[in-house]
Amino acid sequence: MTFKTDFKGRLDQYAGVVNEAMQQFLPKTDGLEHLVIEAMRYSIEAGGKRIRPVLVLEFCRVCGGDTEAALPFACAIEMVHTYSLIHDDLPCMDDDALRRGRPSCHVKFGEATALLAGDALLSLAFEAALCNNYRGRLRPGDVILAAHELAAASGAKGMVGGQQIDLEYEGKPVGLEVLEPMHRGKTGAMIRAAAKMGCIVAGAPQLLIDAGDAYAQKLGLAFQIRDDILDLTSTDEALGKPAGSDLVNHKSTYATLLGLEESGRMLGELTRQAEECLRPFGEEGHFLRELARYLAARAG
Amino acid sequence: MTFKTDFKGRLDQYAGVVNEAMQQFLPKTDGLEHLVIEAMRYSIEAGGKRIRPVLVLEFCRVCGGDTEAALPFACAIEMVHTYSLIHDDLPCMDDDALRRGRPSCHVKFGEATALLAGDALLSLAFEAALCNNYRGRLRPGDVILAAHELAAASGAKGMVGGQQIDLEYEGKPVGLEVLEPMHRGKTGAMIRAAAKMGCIVAGAPQLLIDAGDAYAQKLGLAFQIRDDILDLTSTDEALGKPAGSDLVNHKSTYATLLGLEESGRMLGELTRQAEECLRPFGEEGHFLRELARYLAARAG
Repeated sequence: MTFKTDFKGRLDQYAGVVNEAMQQFLPKTDGLEHLVIEAMRYSIEAGGKRIRPVLVLEFCRVCGGDTEAALPFACAIEMVHTYSLIHDDLPCMDDDALRRGRPSCHVKFGEATALLAGDALLSLAFEAALCNNYRGRLRPGDVILAAHELAAASGAKGMVGGQQIDLEYEGKPVGLEVLEPMHRGKTGAMIRAAAKMGCIVAGAPQLLIDAGDAYAQKLGLAFQIRDDILDLTSTDEALGKPAGSDLVNHKSTYATLLGLEESGRMLGELTRQAEECLRPFGEEGHFLRELARYLAARAG
Repeated sequence: MTFKTDFKGRLDQYAGVVNEAMQQFLPKTDGLEHLVIEAMRYSIEAGGKRIRPVLVLEFCRVCGGDTEAALPFACAIEMVHTYSLIHDDLPCMDDDALRRGRPSCHVKFGEATALLAGDALLSLAFEAALCNNYRGRLRPGDVILAAHELAAASGAKGMVGGQQIDLEYEGKPVGLEVLEPMHRGKTGAMIRAAAKMGCIVAGAPQLLIDAGDAYAQKLGLAFQIRDDILDLTSTDEALGKPAGSDLVNHKSTYATLLGLEESGRMLGELTRQAEECLRPFGEEGHFLRELARYLAARAG
């Protein structure tokens, strides 16, 4: 692949190739089970920023890897992210009727099919990551390591663990001692996995994997704080969901706990630290530095 | 591992080593997310016949593989099976309050935590399959292939697809043209994956993988027919769930569609065919032949 040099151009390019590659992995709707596959497609095609796949591809690139061969991993992490949104929206979880401005998967397809669509997307993620499409272009040991990373990050000590903490403290005022492990799991784990998977499939040395991990750790927390700030300061239209819902629901967030000023300061500091972590990548880290600033300033 | 030579002895031995190995993979309940991990443990420890892990280990053995190194795959397939039971029991699916004579996961832990426990078990399955515990004792390419098999078998064109068909035709009278693809997905896909994974991690040639697959295909269908017969002829106690529920719910099954006599004949014929498929394994296929007869005659 050749890469656009301007930030927005490359961001869109990555999202484009990932969307196209995901179409290849999504099964055909030709059997009696077609509805669950339509539900999977509906949620995948709802869009989103594709930030996690961008991290996989760009970290692979900065480590000198084969970005095309990393595509199955970029797809895989977006499938896991999408499954988690479908299950999160279910009535027994957040009971959200809207997602990205459209009816949630269970509103459109019913609860049972949405549940199954989420389940099948998680399996599909591993089917993609472990596919044979790029045999010989990745080291098998790296494929195993990267897919293992995805499994660990999405499980009970990662994303699902964070969601469980969220459930546990729902509607209760909490402090940072709960907020931190919750977000480390809910959003942090998958963002870190994305960066690490990109480095791993590129066959990068541990030093670079660790640098990618450290960057993603800062980026993930900054991402969450920006989310919390936007909930207090943005509009329904810009967010594609009701703004101010954290206050209405008495939900403790970085923004409600620390105030807008202090959380803004923290966001700036984390973004600076994230950029700092990219030092080992030298000039090649340019896009990732810009990505950190872009996410910190985003409006929705 | 050394293996007991009597059938029941080896069956119990396999279940024992798998139960022990699963304990190693289950995460600790030491964090704020402990409840979801307790729910995972509760469902894994509810027991069951561990038939799928037995197939993984025995097929690995008959192919001359390293059965100890196949343990992560035996655990993985049981974790996938367990997650599917948890999600199947949820109110939006079968709404079953009892599983193996105990309260279902969601009755004990609440719907949201049960949903997450199922999700986390699916991720844990891949964490197990892709772990590093037996580095050097399996070929990396075989590990990838076996884990890919698990992903495909559990997804929309496998187990989840079968569940979707089940949903779709719930409460409607159906013929074999629906029953067959439904069971091919719901139970067949994972039983076939178990046999194939065992052969694959042993590094077996395609001829043996195909033979294992063919055996498992017959075994899976026979297993389902035995289930359907037992529903009509057994007791609540022997089944650990209400007997006769298929009739009460007007559910089409092999036994209700074909009648007890014809389904009994089919069960016998499939069992004979399954044994026939084991020819390439010669004398070593003894345990698997006995397994087919044992499952065809089981009381619960």
